[in-house]
Amino acid sequence: MNDAAALQAKIHRTIPLSAVMGYEIVELDEAQIVVEAPLQPNINIHGTGFAGSLYTLGVLSAWALCNHVIDDAGLDAELVIAEAAIRYRAPVRGRIRCRCRLSANQIQGFVAGLRTRGSARIQVEVDIGEEPGAKMQATLHASRG
Amino acid sequence: MNDAAALQAKIHRTIPLSAVMGYEIVELDEAQIVVEAPLQPNINIHGTGFAGSLYTLGVLSAWALCNHVIDDAGLDAELVIAEAAIRYRAPVRGRIRCRCRLSANQIQGFVAGLRTRGSARIQVEVDIGEEPGAKMQATLHASRG
Repeated sequence: MNDAAALQAKIHRTIPLSAVMGYEIVELDEAQIVVEAPLQPNINIHGTGFAGSLYTLGVLSAWALCNHVIDDAGLDAELVIAEAAIRYRAPVRGRIRCRCRLSANQIQGFVAGLRTRGSARIQVEVDIGEEPGAKMQATLHASRG
Repeated sequence: MNDAAALQAKIHRTIPLSAVMGYEIVELDEAQIVVEAPLQPNINIHGTGFAGSLYTLGVLSAWALCNHVIDDAGLDAELVIAEAAIRYRAPVRGRIRCRCRLSANQIQGFVAGLRTRGSARIQVEVDIGEEPGAKMQATLHASRG
């Protein structure tokens, strides 16, 4: 099983809502993730992507990428969402796609903080849907056990 | 069927994720809503309320209350979430409870805007979990057909 499949399986197992939503990691490398989900389980009253699903897929993109960064660095840490903000710009029609990328500086600062102080914060941006339909900023906090 | 039961049924029918999450309207009047959901379908890797579920229950509290305000005023409007921000303060353990209240001024301004201009925005605060565990601010936009 590759990293993306293993991480997706872990998320489905530990966050049951993610499996119901059809959360799928379609690309994952050391600095970027692309997540997709079908529209149908995530539909709203207007027949487009439900605001709660768009947020949840975005936050699970940010969380998965930061989790992968921690694993890549050979560290073990508890990772939580501290806060997040989302702006909905246009309806999301069809399959829902989230993209999230970290800069080398962001990754270095996050990993160095975890190594030297035992905890670190990182601010992540996620584009949700094409155009994109929504933009999210999430702040995550990691602390070593 | 009372207003709360009818609104809950409409949300379950049109936003299937809400039914999976066990979304339940336990109190509803002209200015306040209380929503609950069981922890189990909304659990995270730490065994507490999942950040995506807390946000989604919060946004569905704000949306339901504003929908009720529009109905109470005898109006018909499309209601969407424009943006939202959430801060997670403490883990939510056990049943998840959201509370959301509007002031008389907020309601009057929102309804008057819809009546006179055909569209209106309203900013709503939601407390999620006891203490509360998370606080959300959501901005909703309504427009008449």
